[in-house]
Amino acid sequence: MPLVVRNTPRTDLAVVDSLAKAGVATVHEAQGRMGLLRADIRPVFRPTRIAGNALTCEVAPGDNWTIHIAVEQAQPGDILIVTPTSPCDDGYLGELLAESLRAHGVRGAVLDTGVRDVATLTEMGFPVWSKTVSAQGTVKETPGNVQTPIVCAGAYVRPGDVIVADDDGVVIVPREQAAAVLDAAQAREANEASKRIRLAAGELGLDIYGMRDRLAAKGVRYVDYEDSP
Amino acid sequence: MPLVVRNTPRTDLAVVDSLAKAGVATVHEAQGRMGLLRADIRPVFRPTRIAGNALTCEVAPGDNWTIHIAVEQAQPGDILIVTPTSPCDDGYLGELLAESLRAHGVRGAVLDTGVRDVATLTEMGFPVWSKTVSAQGTVKETPGNVQTPIVCAGAYVRPGDVIVADDDGVVIVPREQAAAVLDAAQAREANEASKRIRLAAGELGLDIYGMRDRLAAKGVRYVDYEDSP
Amino acid sequence: MPLVVRNTPRTDLAVVDSLAKAGVATVHEAQGRMGLLRADIRPVFRPTRIAGNALTCEVAPGDNWTIHIAVEQAQPGDILIVTPTSPCDDGYLGELLAESLRAHGVRGAVLDTGVRDVATLTEMGFPVWSKTVSAQGTVKETPGNVQTPIVCAGAYVRPGDVIVADDDGVVIVPREQAAAVLDAAQAREANEASKRIRLAAGELGLDIYGMRDRLAAKGVRYVDYEDSP
Amino acid sequence: MPLVVRNTPRTDLAVVDSLAKAGVATVHEAQGRMGLLRADIRPVFRPTRIAGNALTCEVAPGDNWTIHIAVEQAQPGDILIVTPTSPCDDGYLGELLAESLRAHGVRGAVLDTGVRDVATLTEMGFPVWSKTVSAQGTVKETPGNVQTPIVCAGAYVRPGDVIVADDDGVVIVPREQAAAVLDAAQAREANEASKRIRLAAGELGLDIYGMRDRLAAKGVRYVDYEDSP
Amino acid sequence: MPLVVRNTPRTDLAVVDSLAKAGVATVHEAQGRMGLLRADIRPVFRPTRIAGNALTCEVAPGDNWTIHIAVEQAQPGDILIVTPTSPCDDGYLGELLAESLRAHGVRGAVLDTGVRDVATLTEMGFPVWSKTVSAQGTVKETPGNVQTPIVCAGAYVRPGDVIVADDDGVVIVPREQAAAVLDAAQAREANEASKRIRLAAGELGLDIYGMRDRLAAKGVRYVDYEDSP
Amino acid sequence: MPLVVRNTPRTDLAVVDSLAKAGVATVHEAQGRMGLLRADIRPVFRPTRIAGNALTCEVAPGDNWTIHIAVEQAQPGDILIVTPTSPCDDGYLGELLAESLRAHGVRGAVLDTGVRDVATLTEMGFPVWSKTVSAQGTVKETPGNVQTPIVCAGAYVRPGDVIVADDDGVVIVPREQAAAVLDAAQAREANEASKRIRLAAGELGLDIYGMRDRLAAKGVRYVDYEDSP
Repeated sequence: MPLVVRNTPRTDLAVVDSLAKAGVATVHEAQGRMGLLRADIRPVFRPTRIAGNALTCEVAPGDNWTIHIAVEQAQPGDILIVTPTSPCDDGYLGELLAESLRAHGVRGAVLDTGVRDVATLTEMGFPVWSKTVSAQGTVKETPGNVQTPIVCAGAYVRPGDVIVADDDGVVIVPREQAAAVLDAAQAREANEASKRIRLAAGELGLDIYGMRDRLAAKGVRYVDYEDSP
Repeated sequence: MPLVVRNTPRTDLAVVDSLAKAGVATVHEAQGRMGLLRADIRPVFRPTRIAGNALTCEVAPGDNWTIHIAVEQAQPGDILIVTPTSPCDDGYLGELLAESLRAHGVRGAVLDTGVRDVATLTEMGFPVWSKTVSAQGTVKETPGNVQTPIVCAGAYVRPGDVIVADDDGVVIVPREQAAAVLDAAQAREANEASKRIRLAAGELGLDIYGMRDRLAAKGVRYVDYEDSP
Repeated sequence: MPLVVRNTPRTDLAVVDSLAKAGVATVHEAQGRMGLLRADIRPVFRPTRIAGNALTCEVAPGDNWTIHIAVEQAQPGDILIVTPTSPCDDGYLGELLAESLRAHGVRGAVLDTGVRDVATLTEMGFPVWSKTVSAQGTVKETPGNVQTPIVCAGAYVRPGDVIVADDDGVVIVPREQAAAVLDAAQAREANEASKRIRLAAGELGLDIYGMRDRLAAKGVRYVDYEDSP
Repeated sequence: MPLVVRNTPRTDLAVVDSLAKAGVATVHEAQGRMGLLRADIRPVFRPTRIAGNALTCEVAPGDNWTIHIAVEQAQPGDILIVTPTSPCDDGYLGELLAESLRAHGVRGAVLDTGVRDVATLTEMGFPVWSKTVSAQGTVKETPGNVQTPIVCAGAYVRPGDVIVADDDGVVIVPREQAAAVLDAAQAREANEASKRIRLAAGELGLDIYGMRDRLAAKGVRYVDYEDSP
Repeated sequence: MPLVVRNTPRTDLAVVDSLAKAGVATVHEAQGRMGLLRADIRPVFRPTRIAGNALTCEVAPGDNWTIHIAVEQAQPGDILIVTPTSPCDDGYLGELLAESLRAHGVRGAVLDTGVRDVATLTEMGFPVWSKTVSAQGTVKETPGNVQTPIVCAGAYVRPGDVIVADDDGVVIVPREQAAAVLDAAQAREANEASKRIRLAAGELGLDIYGMRDRLAAKGVRYVDYEDSP
Repeated sequence: MPLVVRNTPRTDLAVVDSLAKAGVATVHEAQGRMGLLRADIRPVFRPTRIAGNALTCEVAPGDNWTIHIAVEQAQPGDILIVTPTSPCDDGYLGELLAESLRAHGVRGAVLDTGVRDVATLTEMGFPVWSKTVSAQGTVKETPGNVQTPIVCAGAYVRPGDVIVADDDGVVIVPREQAAAVLDAAQAREANEASKRIRLAAGELGLDIYGMRDRLAAKGVRYVDYEDSP
C-alpha cells in the first residue's frame, strides 16, 4: 500500500546552502566518496548548482501521479527526487509540475526518468537533472510512496537528506552527517585553492604530493625514447 | 530494387506551421501519445522548434548516396528524415548536404544515424536531430528508397506526414490527422495555460485534477514521520 | 612494470596548427577515413577546435596517479590522451590537473573515462573530450605507462602523433603522415568550398558528382506517387 | 481510445510453415533485406525456430492488461507480438500467460519488453523472444490496442503478417508478399546448399562469385609482407 | 576508513530455503514488487535457483581485495553480494575465490561487476550472477567495507537480508520481513497453480480475473476488421 | 587504397596450442593484463576454448567483401579477426563463410560486428566470438585491408599475433612475446593449482597472501555488529 509520510525531518538550510557552494565533487570527496548518483543523471541546462532537502518520491513506470502527491508535502528549500519502480524514460515532469513545485518553494528536481518541456524549464531557470529528455507523457493510475527512503540512480536517499547537484552530477549527504561533511568540504576547498596556485605556477603534483619515492617503490621505470622496448 | 516516389502528397503548410507552435509534447498528447521517435534522437543545438512535411529516405549502413537522391525530390517546407537499413552511427550529413537541402527549401533534418560538421550546422542555424555526432564519412555505393513509408527511430513515417521537432524530441503526425490533431493541440494549450496560472499561485494538482477521492480508493495511507513503519 | 618514456618525437607545431584549422571531419577524410576515436568521446564545451602532439597515458581503473607522472613529460603544444586499462567512468581530471597541464603548455585533454569540475573547465576555456562527466574521484595506488603506444577509444595512438579534436570528435594522425595528410586536407577544403557555393545555389549533388548514370545502372526506379506499389 | 480488431486476415499456414523451415536469415535476404527486428530481441532458449501469424498488441509501460485482451483474439498458428508505447523492460509475460496462449494455439511470443519465469518457459518449450529477462511484474490499469498495425523493435507489423523467429532473431513478412517471399527463399536455399558444398571443398568465394575483376577495379593491392608499408 | 562488521544478524535458514523454492518472481510479487536488482545482473549458467543470507561487500574499481576480507566473515548459508564504488566490469571473482567461498559454506555470489573463469564456475556448479563476463583481473590496493548496508544494482541490501536468485534475476528480502514474505509467497503459489490449470484448459484471463466490466469502463472498443479505421 | 599483405609471419603452432590450454584469464594475467578485447565480444556457444594466429581483416560497415579476400590468405591454425571501420552490428559471417574458413584450416573467428546462422555454427562446432547476433546481411561493394595491423574491440592486433579465446573472452598476445608469455602462464597455472587446493581446504586468502599487516596499515577497522555506527 502506498505510504505518504508527513512532517519528516529536514537539514538546516544554512548547512544546506553552504554545501551548495562547495559543489558536488568536493562534497563527494569530503564524505569519503559516497552517495553519488549514476553519472547518466545529467542537468537539463548548464551551468547550475543547487542544494536542498530531499523530497522523495517513488513512481510507477509511465505514471507520474505520485509527484502530484509529493508537491503537497513540499517545504521551501526542498529538492524533489524521483525514482521509478522499474526503469522508465518517460517525461514525468514538465513546465506545469515545475511551476507547481516552484510555487511551493522547491528548488529543483532530480529524476531517474525522462523529463520534457526542457526549453521552458531552461527559460524558467528551474534546474532539473534527469536520465533522459522525452516528450512521452504519463498516466495517473498507480500511486506510490512519498517521503520514504528510496534508492535513486544507485544512491540511497531518505527524506531530508541533503541533495547537492551541479554540472558534475548529484550527490546525497545523510542528514546526520551534513554538518561534519560541510566542515570537511570547507577544509578541502581551502587546501585545493592553495594547491591550484602552486600548480598554476608550474609546480608538479609529483612534488606537491611527495609521490616520487612511492613511484620508485612501485617499480616505475624511466627510459629515453631511443632506449624504449 | 530502390524506389524513388515523385509527387507525393504533402500536408498544408498552414497546418504544419501551427503544429510547430504547439511543440512536440503538446502535439504528442493531442494525438493520443503516438508517433514519438526514440528519445535518443537529440537536437544538434538548442533551443530549436520546427515542423515540416516528411521527405523520407532509407540509407544503407555507411552510405549516404540516397540523401543526394532525396534532395531532388524536396519541396519548400519539407524536413528530411533518414533511417538506416541497419543501425549505423556514421556522419551521414554535414555542411554540404545541409547547404544543399536549405537551397531547396528544406527546413531541417532528422536522422537515426550520426551527423558531422555540427559547429557549422549550428552557425548556419540549420536544425538537425540525430542519434550521434560522428566525423565518420560515408560512401556512395548502395542507393535506397526515397519517399516510401519507413520506420525511423521506432516511428512509422510516410512522405508528407508532419514532423514536429523541438528540444524535447521528434513526433510524427499522419497527414490525414494533421488538422484534427492541431485542433486538439490548441485546445490543450489553452487548458494548460490556465492550469499553469493556478499552479503558479500555489493550488495543488491534487485539487485542480480532483484526485483526492481516487487516492483514497487506491488505499494511499498518510502517516506522520514518528508513526511511520 | 610501468614505463615512462622521455624525449619522444613530436610533430612540427606548424603542421599541427594547420591540421587544427582543417578540423576533424576533413582530416579524417584526408587520411582515408582512419584514426577516428569512438563517437561517444564528446567535448565538455562547444564550440572548440584544437590540435596538438599526443602525450599518452595509460591509467588503472579508478586511479589517476599516472596523469601526474605524465604532466612532467609534457611539452608546449601537447594534448594529454588517457586510456584506462579497463572501462572506467570515474572523474580522472578536474580543475587542478587542468591548471597543472595548462601551466606546462598542454592545450587540452582527451580521456576515455569521466572528468569532473566541468563548470570550471568551461570557465577556464580548457578544452576536454571525455566519455562521461562524473564527480567520482580516483585513488593514487597503481601507476601506469606514459608515452608508450596505446589504444584509446578504438584508435591506436603513439606519443607525438597528432590529435585533432573539435565539436565532431577526435582523430589521430600518425606523425610520419602529418605533412601529407595536411596537404590532402587543404586540397579537400578548397574543393569543398567550391562545392558549397554550387550547392547553395541549388545545383544538385546528383549533377555535381555525376551520379545519374550509376543510379540507373544500380536499377533505381522513379515512379509517381499514384503509380507506386 | 483502445481498439480491439476482430477477424483480421491471416496468412495461409502452409506458407507460414514453409517460411519457418527457411529460417530468419534466408527469409530476410529473400525479401530484399527488410523487416528485421532490432538485434537485441533474443530467444529465451536455443535452438528454436518457428513461424506464425502476427497477433499484435500494444501495451502501456509496466502494464500487461492488453495481453489478456489479445489472448481472446488468438487463433491456432498465431504468434503474439508485443510493443510498449514507451520503452519498458518489465516482465510482461510469464508461465501463466504462456500457458494461456498455448491453450489457444499460439506458437510463441515476441516482446520488445522483458519476460519472466524463463526457467518454466524453457521447460514448457514455449518459445519467446524478448529484449530483457526481468522478474518485475506489471499492473492492469491501462488497456491498449489489439490487432492494429504496430512498430515493434524497429519493424512495422500488421495483424496476420508472418513472423519468422529463430536463433538469429525475428523477421516480419507482409502477408501479401508471403507466397512470393517463400518462393525466393526456397530458390535461395537451393543455391546456398550447392555453394556450401563447393566452399567446403576449398573453392574460394573470390572464384565462385567471380570477384577478382571487381577487386582489381577497386584498386585492391597485393603486397608481400616484407614489401608492405 | 573501511569497516568490517562481525557477527551480523542472519535470517533463519529454514525461511531462506523456503523462499528459494518460491523463486524470484513470486517472492518479488509477494513483497509488493520491491527489492529487485537491475535486470542486467544475469546468471553465469542456467537453470539455477538459490537463496541465502547476504554477505555484503563494497569494492573499489578494479580491486577485489575486499572479497578476500569478506570470506573470513562468511557463514554457511550466505551468498556474497558485491557492489563497486563506481561502475566496473572487471572480473572480480574466478575459480579461486569461488573455491574459497564454497569451502566456507557460501552458496553463490551476486556481483554488479564482471566475473571470470565462467567455464570452471559452470563445471563446479557454483552459481554466480553478474553484470558482465570479463577476463580482466584486479589489484589488491584499496580495501572497502564488509557487512555494512550497501546499494547493489539498484537495490538496498543489509547483511543478513535474504537474497533469492534464479534464472529471472535477483531479489532482496529485508530480514525482518522474511517470514511474512514467505507466507505471502506460498499463498501466491497456491493461487497461481490453480489459475494455471484453468488457463491451460482454455479459460480466459479476462474471465478468471473478471476484467470485462473494467475494460468497458475504460472505453475499449471492439470492431471487426472490415470496419476498423 | 585497400591492401592485402601476403606471407605474413605466424607464431609457432606448438606455442599457440599451449596458450590455448592456459586459457584467456591466465594468459591475460601472464602478460601483465594487456591485450584483452572489450567484454561485449562473446562466444556464440559455450563451452569453447581455442588459440590461433591472427588473420586480420578490416571491413566497411554493412559490407563483408573483405572476408572473402581474407579466406585466400588463410593458413591452417589461423583465427579470423574482423574489425569494422565504423561500428556495425550486421551479420558479417554465417554458415557459408564458416564452411569456407574451416576448409582452409581456420580454427574460428572473432568479429567486432554481428554474425548469423548461429544455430548452424553451433551444430558445426565452429567457434565464433562476436558483439551481436544479427540476421542482417551485408553487401560486397567496398573492399578493405587484409593482414594489416588493426584495432579490434579495443585491442591492437597484427597478423600472426596469437589470439586466445574462450568462455571468458578474447586476448591478443604479440607474436614476439608468445613464448615468454607461455612460460609465465604455465608458472601461473602451477601456482594457482596449489592455491586452489589450500583454499578448498578452507585456508583464507588473507593468510595465504599475507594480507593482514597491509590491511591494518590501510586502517581497516573490525567492529562487532552491536558496536557498528
